[in-house]
Amino acid sequence: MVYKYIDIVGTSSIGVDDAVNNAFKEASETVKNIQWGEMGRVTFRLDESQKLEYQAEVRIGFKVERGKD
Amino acid sequence: MVYKYIDIVGTSSIGVDDAVNNAFKEASETVKNIQWGEMGRVTFRLDESQKLEYQAEVRIGFKVERGKD
Amino acid sequence: MVYKYIDIVGTSSIGVDDAVNNAFKEASETVKNIQWGEMGRVTFRLDESQKLEYQAEVRIGFKVERGKD
Amino acid sequence: MVYKYIDIVGTSSIGVDDAVNNAFKEASETVKNIQWGEMGRVTFRLDESQKLEYQAEVRIGFKVERGKD
Amino acid sequence: MVYKYIDIVGTSSIGVDDAVNNAFKEASETVKNIQWGEMGRVTFRLDESQKLEYQAEVRIGFKVERGKD
Amino acid sequence: MVYKYIDIVGTSSIGVDDAVNNAFKEASETVKNIQWGEMGRVTFRLDESQKLEYQAEVRIGFKVERGKD
Amino acid sequence: MVYKYIDIVGTSSIGVDDAVNNAFKEASETVKNIQWGEMGRVTFRLDESQKLEYQAEVRIGFKVERGKD
Amino acid sequence: MVYKYIDIVGTSSIGVDDAVNNAFKEASETVKNIQWGEMGRVTFRLDESQKLEYQAEVRIGFKVERGKD
Amino acid sequence: MVYKYIDIVGTSSIGVDDAVNNAFKEASETVKNIQWGEMGRVTFRLDESQKLEYQAEVRIGFKVERGKD
Amino acid sequence: MVYKYIDIVGTSSIGVDDAVNNAFKEASETVKNIQWGEMGRVTFRLDESQKLEYQAEVRIGFKVERGKD
Amino acid sequence: MVYKYIDIVGTSSIGVDDAVNNAFKEASETVKNIQWGEMGRVTFRLDESQKLEYQAEVRIGFKVERGKD
Amino acid sequence: MVYKYIDIVGTSSIGVDDAVNNAFKEASETVKNIQWGEMGRVTFRLDESQKLEYQAEVRIGFKVERGKD
Repeated sequence: MVYKYIDIVGTSSIGVDDAVNNAFKEASETVKNIQWGEMGRVTFRLDESQKLEYQAEVRIGFKVERGKD
Repeated sequence: MVYKYIDIVGTSSIGVDDAVNNAFKEASETVKNIQWGEMGRVTFRLDESQKLEYQAEVRIGFKVERGKD
Repeated sequence: MVYKYIDIVGTSSIGVDDAVNNAFKEASETVKNIQWGEMGRVTFRLDESQKLEYQAEVRIGFKVERGKD
Repeated sequence: MVYKYIDIVGTSSIGVDDAVNNAFKEASETVKNIQWGEMGRVTFRLDESQKLEYQAEVRIGFKVERGKD
Repeated sequence: MVYKYIDIVGTSSIGVDDAVNNAFKEASETVKNIQWGEMGRVTFRLDESQKLEYQAEVRIGFKVERGKD
Repeated sequence: MVYKYIDIVGTSSIGVDDAVNNAFKEASETVKNIQWGEMGRVTFRLDESQKLEYQAEVRIGFKVERGKD
Repeated sequence: MVYKYIDIVGTSSIGVDDAVNNAFKEASETVKNIQWGEMGRVTFRLDESQKLEYQAEVRIGFKVERGKD
Repeated sequence: MVYKYIDIVGTSSIGVDDAVNNAFKEASETVKNIQWGEMGRVTFRLDESQKLEYQAEVRIGFKVERGKD
Repeated sequence: MVYKYIDIVGTSSIGVDDAVNNAFKEASETVKNIQWGEMGRVTFRLDESQKLEYQAEVRIGFKVERGKD
Repeated sequence: MVYKYIDIVGTSSIGVDDAVNNAFKEASETVKNIQWGEMGRVTFRLDESQKLEYQAEVRIGFKVERGKD
Repeated sequence: MVYKYIDIVGTSSIGVDDAVNNAFKEASETVKNIQWGEMGRVTFRLDESQKLEYQAEVRIGFKVERGKD
Repeated sequence: MVYKYIDIVGTSSIGVDDAVNNAFKEASETVKNIQWGEMGRVTFRLDESQKLEYQAEVRIGFKVERGKD
């Protein structure tokens, strides 16, 4: 069995939980067999109207199906 | 005065805040005089139905009552 | 162009997102041109009634206007 | 669901893999529901006959059964 | 000359060396010009029969052939 | 041979050395075969009279006697 | 909005700045919407004629266009 | 409630404890409501007469009084 | 003797050395007795014309003159 | 009593344990009173025949005999 | 101008300050032009009589005189 | 095959690249078979005339020729 990672930064105007959710949504459009993730850096950005954007870097792990090992 | 730690991973299907809360609830069933905590690694797991579980590692500090120091 | 930081610990009885928000609110009373932030240590404190306080350390970056560079 | 850790340093005169194994063996005499582990610091000690002892620090995670969550 | 990385978690029931080997085997099915690697986190998982699975995260570097630079 | 850790925060109004000493004293009331320790985070607290309390986090290692290995 | 990373090691016989530039050039041949980067490890290699090669690991972030979020 | 930090390097020819003390003394001339501190890097300098100067970097936290939150 | 820090992000379209220089220039408009600095994170930004901006975070240390110590 | 370190990268075509052993062998040709070691970075290199070389960085500690202290 | 380091672990039965001092004393028997140092890991050992030995790892920097640069 | 390191701080009034170069020059006067290096901490010093000195800590790796392995 072999696993790989993709690192995705999900964003949200609601909060960190939602930003994480968006990262997993994006990942599921690219890879299959997603099994776990780990929070990386959490950052914030302010737009001109001073509204806070939450940004959560998530390292997402998925099983590679090629081998039988 | 002396303090000790317990490291607990709380989980929740709602979000990180709730997972932290669950870690403190578990800790309070084992030790008294809990005073503070610090977030460790935050991880995620996907069950078969692709529902996200939030997992928050919390280092929880409590006062040991033995000594008078 | 030059940027500076202020490090602020926002607190909240609601959760981490709200604690971050409070850090940005305080920062905006001191400096202008706030553009981004990054989460530092997340800690917790329990008051006597065992209510959890969430504490989020945020490093907040803002543009310094003096120069033209 | 809640998880806890125990940190154990397993030792072996054979190698790192065996030292890890010994850490898990010791852990299983104290706690149930062991599910995963993570390598910490790997150190070595030389006895008087200059034979190498491998020492592997392992953080071992197990499920706490108390709650229903 | 330019290099890129792939991060792969190799697994093995034998030990860490073999898990690293499996990570390189998987990598070589995806990219060419693999030249070096670096160990990341080493983790362990216990299946129901309490057999230990060794998991080695390896960052594998390879040369990108496009440019002449 | 197998070793375990306890993490203790010793405190003192005198200084860091004394705080470390207090951590070892507390540890020796709980476990036997203490052999070494390592300084972790060093923190300080000011009481209302502005007197400084030194706090030294010490990870203390001890030999577990169960096995023969 | 969602962001992803690619990690690239740019090299140069001139210096670190030029190595970073080469990493961005390579990245721009693979992905669009590159917005920022962060320096990782900086390493050096000496060829047989003892000429120094500068190697700069750069984590490069780009916007993923799929979603509307 | 909101907290801020100041980072100060206290020095002393006596030792680390005294250097920490001097950092807090300086801090108390600039800000009020100092509540805690954390040791950062500890460094040393030798003057021409080879006398050792102890330097302790301390991150000092204090409560900001503006808000009512 | 007591020292303090200011953290400044200098930027430059030329390279990292020049970005560091700009950080020191800005610092010297705010504080006196600057004596040393340490590189923090180095980041990059691409404007619309795909021109690279180098950003160097520098922690700058200066002597506080108040005390005689 | 005073201790010093030497940092050595041992290599092996067999595995990590053997690479560590080779590092200690080399160290024992240079210094006496070797007492312990600690694993640093573990890296890998592939030669042209795609055979894996294991490289283990080991920090090796030894007692300096000069003083009586 | 060029600088080098030696890493020394000084020990003392009195405390951390004295252990640091002993590290510098040993260094001064080997190299000249010592100018600064930085504390590394601080560890402790208990002898059979349960007396605490303080061990301070110090990285000591000195000027190399060869070049004129 | 076995490798060792020397840690050298090269300095320059021109910039970081040149400071790295000076570190390699010094290393080549002491050891043979230098093959690679890695940037450590980058620091700066201001002399009385406020001229910036760049200081680059470089860990330089070289092959030890003794063994045949």
